[in-house]
Amino acid sequence: MFQQELREVQTRLAEIAELVESAIQRGTKAFQESDVALAEAVIEDDLRIDTLATSLDELAITILARQQPVAKDLRIIVSALRISASLERMGDIAEHIAQLARYRFPESVIPKGLGKIFREMGELDVQVAANVVTLLRTEDLLIIEDIRNTDDRIDELHAKVFEKVLSDTFKGEVTNVVDATLASRYHERFADHAVSIAKKVQYLATGEYS
Amino acid sequence: MFQQELREVQTRLAEIAELVESAIQRGTKAFQESDVALAEAVIEDDLRIDTLATSLDELAITILARQQPVAKDLRIIVSALRISASLERMGDIAEHIAQLARYRFPESVIPKGLGKIFREMGELDVQVAANVVTLLRTEDLLIIEDIRNTDDRIDELHAKVFEKVLSDTFKGEVTNVVDATLASRYHERFADHAVSIAKKVQYLATGEYS
Repeated sequence: MFQQELREVQTRLAEIAELVESAIQRGTKAFQESDVALAEAVIEDDLRIDTLATSLDELAITILARQQPVAKDLRIIVSALRISASLERMGDIAEHIAQLARYRFPESVIPKGLGKIFREMGELDVQVAANVVTLLRTEDLLIIEDIRNTDDRIDELHAKVFEKVLSDTFKGEVTNVVDATLASRYHERFADHAVSIAKKVQYLATGEYS
Repeated sequence: MFQQELREVQTRLAEIAELVESAIQRGTKAFQESDVALAEAVIEDDLRIDTLATSLDELAITILARQQPVAKDLRIIVSALRISASLERMGDIAEHIAQLARYRFPESVIPKGLGKIFREMGELDVQVAANVVTLLRTEDLLIIEDIRNTDDRIDELHAKVFEKVLSDTFKGEVTNVVDATLASRYHERFADHAVSIAKKVQYLATGEYS
């Protein structure tokens, strides 16, 4: 019975992670292509992620109350609450990226000269979200290193955005600098949350939190 | 016994909140006055907040395992875990604000024309942190409205920063725009976390989450 409930928690976490993957995939596409209809869909759909996360939290609390788990089982449920919070926040960030595209529409939100960097950052955020889905489904710890490496690369690109806008050759307006700064920060934070989820899964599997 | 443990949790949360209040008070001072020694102290001290938050989480998990609380007591412990996560994040943000001051030293990180706005944002962040301390100590729900109002005002100031840097009269460099954008976002997020803590305390007291 308890094992069945744990599986239910795991399945629901992976389902929320899939919605987050879809949100960041569409959010970064809307951001790159100034697709305002797609941006609005991402913004609207975030409510579903929030609702599912809240409902998962309620399930976890019900399991705590009914099953009174201890030791590792207890830690799994507590970690589920934390992973759910990270996923909810990743959904918010995908929404923020979509909002940037909508604010700036019909102009492109991406300053000239930064298209390539933001395309790579977007692809890596989608990849990191896909990895989180697989990690939650399979608990294959090898994926954790992928997530960490992708996050490192995103951090490099984040630094590169600032290098670019601060260089003498940057031709953008002040609006572009504001947009690039916020967008880069969102892309970078998204991956941080993925790393935080990976650490929790690793801790549960190995007892080591690093 | 259980009531005593709950009080211990509450006391520890308030203690962490006090460290967060000190961090944002010193962080915003370092930011406004380009005080690099103070900035470094804030950055160094963040480890203490992280350690105390982790240790509180361990206490909460031990209480869950030993006391097997249900109903409201269970929700109090789960909420404590979430409040601890928000406080830890507020500490990180205070650290980020201090880091901005250090990066830009010996120059001032605050662009000309934005001193007044950032001074007010800083004061309001300190005020919101002090309110969180009092709320956690007293559970006086009247404070929640103060926290919400302060957050609304900070959101207004956040919008004003963008208005200012985007106006024709803004004389700053690209660096100043980047700094102002990040700093404003940090100040704004800090208060969001305070609102999120306030909502949890309100939910526990009234059963209503709004």
